Amino acid sequence: MVFYLIGLGLGDVDDITVRGLKAARSCTRIYLEAYTSILCYGLDKSALEDAFGKEVIEADRELVEQQSDVILAGADQENVAMLVVGDPFGATTHTDFVLRCKEKNIPVKVVHNTTIMSAVGCCGLQLYSFGETVSIVMWTDNWQPDSYYDRIKANLQRGLHTLCLLDIKVKEQSVENLMKKRKIYEPPRYMTCAEAAAQLISIAERKKALGEEPAYTADSMCVGLARVGWEDQRIVYCSLRQMAETDMGLPLHCLCIPGTVHHMEMDMLNTFRL
Amino acid sequence: MVFYLIGLGLGDVDDITVRGLKAARSCTRIYLEAYTSILCYGLDKSALEDAFGKEVIEADRELVEQQSDVILAGADQENVAMLVVGDPFGATTHTDFVLRCKEKNIPVKVVHNTTIMSAVGCCGLQLYSFGETVSIVMWTDNWQPDSYYDRIKANLQRGLHTLCLLDIKVKEQSVENLMKKRKIYEPPRYMTCAEAAAQLISIAERKKALGEEPAYTADSMCVGLARVGWEDQRIVYCSLRQMAETDMGLPLHCLCIPGTVHHMEMDMLNTFRL
Repeated sequence: MVFYLIGLGLGDVDDITVRGLKAARSCTRIYLEAYTSILCYGLDKSALEDAFGKEVIEADRELVEQQSDVILAGADQENVAMLVVGDPFGATTHTDFVLRCKEKNIPVKVVHNTTIMSAVGCCGLQLYSFGETVSIVMWTDNWQPDSYYDRIKANLQRGLHTLCLLDIKVKEQSVENLMKKRKIYEPPRYMTCAEAAAQLISIAERKKALGEEPAYTADSMCVGLARVGWEDQRIVYCSLRQMAETDMGLPLHCLCIPGTVHHMEMDMLNTFRL
Repeated sequence: MVFYLIGLGLGDVDDITVRGLKAARSCTRIYLEAYTSILCYGLDKSALEDAFGKEVIEADRELVEQQSDVILAGADQENVAMLVVGDPFGATTHTDFVLRCKEKNIPVKVVHNTTIMSAVGCCGLQLYSFGETVSIVMWTDNWQPDSYYDRIKANLQRGLHTLCLLDIKVKEQSVENLMKKRKIYEPPRYMTCAEAAAQLISIAERKKALGEEPAYTADSMCVGLARVGWEDQRIVYCSLRQMAETDMGLPLHCLCIPGTVHHMEMDMLNTFRL
């Protein structure tokens, strides 16, 4: 019949579209992708089950990446759905599902939904003025990559805003547990705006120490966004230095580095000043 | 009470989110923004009225831009909604509504939804590898701007994909009708992938004639998308030369110019070859 890839949008049960709700209700099996996103923190599986009137099966990384046949089994005879936070094409894993279905002649239907890459417009920065999106990774003592700096810089040179997605560590195993093949997972960790701002300041200081003119400084303005689309959404417009000291509350966070800010953009940003 | 800005997403009545549906049903007055988008073509107002169990008032450009007080009247005592195709922050007009509500101390709630800027991922190109989005305008005999070429070029130089939004002319008046202040409007026009591809080829040829190495040629590959998220969605991956000859059917169309294409992106694109 049909394999549905259904976007859940910003992560509350009411963020599903009417099309997505109808599709899920028509399915015999419903999987919920439970590792590329914020599930551990935010989404309520039982609320989804109530909305669909069916059981929802959590699909972990192993099931999604290594046992897609189990998920797709029978999808040529009955409707099966995979629920994904955001839009189904937000992660390559789901592109892979579409390709597998095409190979097996299983019809695929995609139910789109919003992603932070659309919803970020709520801070006032215009979507059309964003350049490449970057992902900021959590540093460890031994691993401190900063390749995203060059992309922020390239965006700034063209006057473009940068959306910085912040690292999520979900179902990570400690080195010890990994080596002993124990399926014990670390508690989920979500990078905060404060951590990201501090890291961005460090990188600018490194560049300066190397004699390079940094693309931004600790005094450059940024926009922190937390829990976009949720009741307790919070947006703050301040310097990177101030952001490094600001507690934006519960996850998920993301951070924007504005490029050239136009009049109406500034009017909106000003409503979010600390 | 609350002024709701509700995104309708890709334009079918079922593309509204459950949150948006509940919000609209709670409102005394519901406006439908009818000029920045595809309303004339696609969306069925009566289907929305059936879904909400209420009348939906079409808001034209004049009402939205010059009489926002009429729309906001009473929103401090009852719920009022403005429906917008895509996401509410896709156009600056809606940002302006948020600012006006803040001035008047009317609480605003935004119900996000998907935009083409998220949904374009369905062609296989990864959202994270897109640079700045450009808008391609319909040329006339006397007005043939090509400033978007430089932005496509800058994206290509960084290996980034470009999403080209194509021009829409809705409720345009002829010069004669405009001068005589007659409210007679031309039929809506939607730029096609074929027109956009032909225009992009012309620009490359102009650059070449000026002795410049063009950023792409007529043989460069592109992705045409029509009616994304609709039952009859169509995606085609071919050269610009072929696209200029391809009828993608009814609106809305958009066009992507791929930058550096990775393995899985190519696997998906190959499924859309002519």
